[in-house]
Amino acid sequence: MTRFILKIQTKDRIGIIHGVTSILLKYQVNIETNSEYVDNDNKEFFMRVEFIGKINSDKLLSEVKNLFSENSTVTLHQNQSKKVVIFATKESHCLGDILMRYENNDLNIEILGVISNYDALRELTNKFNLPYHYIPVNNLNREEHENKVLEKLEEINSQFEIDYLILAKYMRVLTPKFVEKYSKKIINIHHSFLPAFIGANPYQRAYDRGVKIIGATAHYVTNDLDEGPIITQDINHIDHALSVNELKLIGKDIEKVTLSNAIELVIKEKVFIYNNKTIIL
Amino acid sequence: MTRFILKIQTKDRIGIIHGVTSILLKYQVNIETNSEYVDNDNKEFFMRVEFIGKINSDKLLSEVKNLFSENSTVTLHQNQSKKVVIFATKESHCLGDILMRYENNDLNIEILGVISNYDALRELTNKFNLPYHYIPVNNLNREEHENKVLEKLEEINSQFEIDYLILAKYMRVLTPKFVEKYSKKIINIHHSFLPAFIGANPYQRAYDRGVKIIGATAHYVTNDLDEGPIITQDINHIDHALSVNELKLIGKDIEKVTLSNAIELVIKEKVFIYNNKTIIL
Amino acid sequence: MTRFILKIQTKDRIGIIHGVTSILLKYQVNIETNSEYVDNDNKEFFMRVEFIGKINSDKLLSEVKNLFSENSTVTLHQNQSKKVVIFATKESHCLGDILMRYENNDLNIEILGVISNYDALRELTNKFNLPYHYIPVNNLNREEHENKVLEKLEEINSQFEIDYLILAKYMRVLTPKFVEKYSKKIINIHHSFLPAFIGANPYQRAYDRGVKIIGATAHYVTNDLDEGPIITQDINHIDHALSVNELKLIGKDIEKVTLSNAIELVIKEKVFIYNNKTIIL
Amino acid sequence: MTRFILKIQTKDRIGIIHGVTSILLKYQVNIETNSEYVDNDNKEFFMRVEFIGKINSDKLLSEVKNLFSENSTVTLHQNQSKKVVIFATKESHCLGDILMRYENNDLNIEILGVISNYDALRELTNKFNLPYHYIPVNNLNREEHENKVLEKLEEINSQFEIDYLILAKYMRVLTPKFVEKYSKKIINIHHSFLPAFIGANPYQRAYDRGVKIIGATAHYVTNDLDEGPIITQDINHIDHALSVNELKLIGKDIEKVTLSNAIELVIKEKVFIYNNKTIIL
Repeated sequence: MTRFILKIQTKDRIGIIHGVTSILLKYQVNIETNSEYVDNDNKEFFMRVEFIGKINSDKLLSEVKNLFSENSTVTLHQNQSKKVVIFATKESHCLGDILMRYENNDLNIEILGVISNYDALRELTNKFNLPYHYIPVNNLNREEHENKVLEKLEEINSQFEIDYLILAKYMRVLTPKFVEKYSKKIINIHHSFLPAFIGANPYQRAYDRGVKIIGATAHYVTNDLDEGPIITQDINHIDHALSVNELKLIGKDIEKVTLSNAIELVIKEKVFIYNNKTIIL
Repeated sequence: MTRFILKIQTKDRIGIIHGVTSILLKYQVNIETNSEYVDNDNKEFFMRVEFIGKINSDKLLSEVKNLFSENSTVTLHQNQSKKVVIFATKESHCLGDILMRYENNDLNIEILGVISNYDALRELTNKFNLPYHYIPVNNLNREEHENKVLEKLEEINSQFEIDYLILAKYMRVLTPKFVEKYSKKIINIHHSFLPAFIGANPYQRAYDRGVKIIGATAHYVTNDLDEGPIITQDINHIDHALSVNELKLIGKDIEKVTLSNAIELVIKEKVFIYNNKTIIL
Repeated sequence: MTRFILKIQTKDRIGIIHGVTSILLKYQVNIETNSEYVDNDNKEFFMRVEFIGKINSDKLLSEVKNLFSENSTVTLHQNQSKKVVIFATKESHCLGDILMRYENNDLNIEILGVISNYDALRELTNKFNLPYHYIPVNNLNREEHENKVLEKLEEINSQFEIDYLILAKYMRVLTPKFVEKYSKKIINIHHSFLPAFIGANPYQRAYDRGVKIIGATAHYVTNDLDEGPIITQDINHIDHALSVNELKLIGKDIEKVTLSNAIELVIKEKVFIYNNKTIIL
Repeated sequence: MTRFILKIQTKDRIGIIHGVTSILLKYQVNIETNSEYVDNDNKEFFMRVEFIGKINSDKLLSEVKNLFSENSTVTLHQNQSKKVVIFATKESHCLGDILMRYENNDLNIEILGVISNYDALRELTNKFNLPYHYIPVNNLNREEHENKVLEKLEEINSQFEIDYLILAKYMRVLTPKFVEKYSKKIINIHHSFLPAFIGANPYQRAYDRGVKIIGATAHYVTNDLDEGPIITQDINHIDHALSVNELKLIGKDIEKVTLSNAIELVIKEKVFIYNNKTIIL
């Protein structure tokens, strides 16, 4: 018996659930959870079924696909660990939180390596017996540096297929070329409750503005800086007495937990992307 | 076209969703939202479908019922306003919050009246042109007083069928007889995050214990004091500097919003009761 | 014995607390709470002392003032109810929440009246025996309409000195002239977690952006729209399944509680304004 | 110039702040933050002053002490790292979170070692080059096992004076003898929002009760199980669909952040203990 996740995104019409469950019934699988959502503005239908069974998965998938037009997205996933590459710069809290969950098997991922534009996190990464790829910027322009990163990713990918790139406080903007190559596979943590404080230095700007909450946002990366589909967000209450550095410290806890929660949703195949938003089933 | 809510609770088995959606497909109704939950420990299945259609509702309901054994619960609800009686004692914040939502059509209820063991809230209730039934305790024992309350409810019920009794800070314990008569129809707000501080004076006890959060819990009333199925809970962070009276003031906001949220879930037929817990779909 | 609040804002230097407490000691008052804050970036000192005593308040104030240079702000307040005028448009939830607290003596204010550009809230206001001033916009331009509002405020002010104007979802932008006239006396509730979604339709924009939290911000009004010093902010978690109207409903609870909390802080003289931020002691 | 923290706890009377600030003024120190609290029920006064200066600290302390009766507690702390021993059992998340902060200098502590009744966390601890003391229970009774733990602590203490014992999910109850020996020096994390779910298996009991929030509580350890003074508490909202194991996973994030926040407050000398509660200044 294997656990599968079936994800469907298609135009809404009468009879979809019935059609899908007919097939699942035929295969005599055991449905564990089943969730649907209809975006009524756009008549778009989303469905996620988690089931257990002993099936020919190609055949089942093909039968389900036959129910829908070509514009639909139908995927079938086995509940197995996802292969990720983590990007970081100098700050250790998000990387560290992922490493700790990984070490403790709390996150169903396989970490293929850590890529950084600084050498600062090598020691931490090596503690967990993971490869650290230091790719310094030096005199390289954005594209040149990125090409070296892409080469490294190709090299990794030639051995193991990368599922996701996790930007765990990676402080460099990616080019459209990069983003397109790993479209819908890059997850970033931004250190503010977006859309507030897009861009650099959000804690300084939060301090200057005198807000009473600070937050963090995990989102898919698109070509618009900090504008991609939001997966998770959280905040903490703050007061006037906290310095920028104290805000940053509080922010670290929000950032790391928010990012780790987003990773969990994504690797459990709970997230759909639609119209630059996420539907989480 | 009318909006309906179909609720099913039954033993889990393969094919339920398929069976139900077969019937809905036959009636050509438009499913708006569909949610299921399976309690895997007990193999109990819950389903809530909200759909729009022009149907013979008795016939549809009977067909769905035929799918299930007698131990199942299958109900079909039209999306219409629920008739409620509100119970209160002296405090006005929960009653006031409900009245304000009612006045503004933010809560799909019809208030049949307010019952209180004090005359304190008559003026507030009358502002909203609603009947106020003052039933003083005086020298009556619990049962005698309750009998008078039950009589009043009978009187109201003879005109309009009461859907729910809302205990909006009604500070009297109900007898088993009363609770049984209105089983699964009584919603209470308790001024603590249960199961902490069951019973009287939770804010004083929270203060004495030195907790750093206070909260409120909306729940169905059963014969065990403050032990019924929990619908909604919320909390606020507090600190040592707040007096008991300040805790009570902060608590009022938590209580009123928590209760009103619970009412909204219940009247939208989103709540199932099972094993002294709620499943909210 | 009377309760007083002494507020001091001045350049930081050694010996301030000692100087102030010397005077308080001389008057033999009983200090209930004493809070200080130093903005170390700007070397600005803030102090709030709440004390009980039988004193010649003019004399004490004058002695304290003598400790400081002319650029300092030193004020002494008796703990008495503040006189407010509430502004609203069509939505009742913020006004209603204030009225309910007022009715229940949970907020130490005297409401001098409600001003609105619509007649929609007259009935609600009158329930609480308060004057409702309907000042329609009709064909008036912004300045003409505002002049009528200012006239009405003058009329009210001639009888009772207005302490604060509460914009309880008043959906009109005030001119600089108006803001200057009531500088630091106007409190607004904005229906987003600022600085996100400044301006109109924040819930629609939150929905379109696909955020996972919505919020509200109470702030002093300045000439920059939604850019004034923030007093209180709060948020709720949301998900993709909520429509814009459902976001608005959830938002109402955040807005009303956030505004009422801000009013409470302001009328208790806990708020200092400095560099477009608030210090809350 | 050194940073100091002066803490005073004494019976409230007129003139305390003036007396203390007189001495501080004489020494010409620069007060950074100054907080007081009066428990009005018990007329107990608390004061925390953080200041920078070049002083003879023994002399200053002795002068301040002379202001107060013998029943008062007056302490002067240099802002230096605290020496802690961490206790754990098998779960790694709290220990891991502390180690990560320690590694990143986000927590001003020196970790003298980790003590555990299991060998499970040795590898993790060793990654950070810290000594791991595995003290198995085997056939030992509670007292015998604890004696071995106490011996180890003596051994550590003979080299470095231990400031605090951090119970980072140490799943054994300490005897009164142990608690007394390290009175006010033991900080525990309990995996529920106390006083709910005191004792074992709080997540299972939370699941069984059907609560809609779960939480964690960091507190000083006293002889009454889970009844010591609470330092920090936090919660997360949950729903019916989460299994006990999923609750535990969510709980891990609450526990680790709640404990680390408590440690930060304690080592910054912000916490006073009084009447089995904490005052945090």
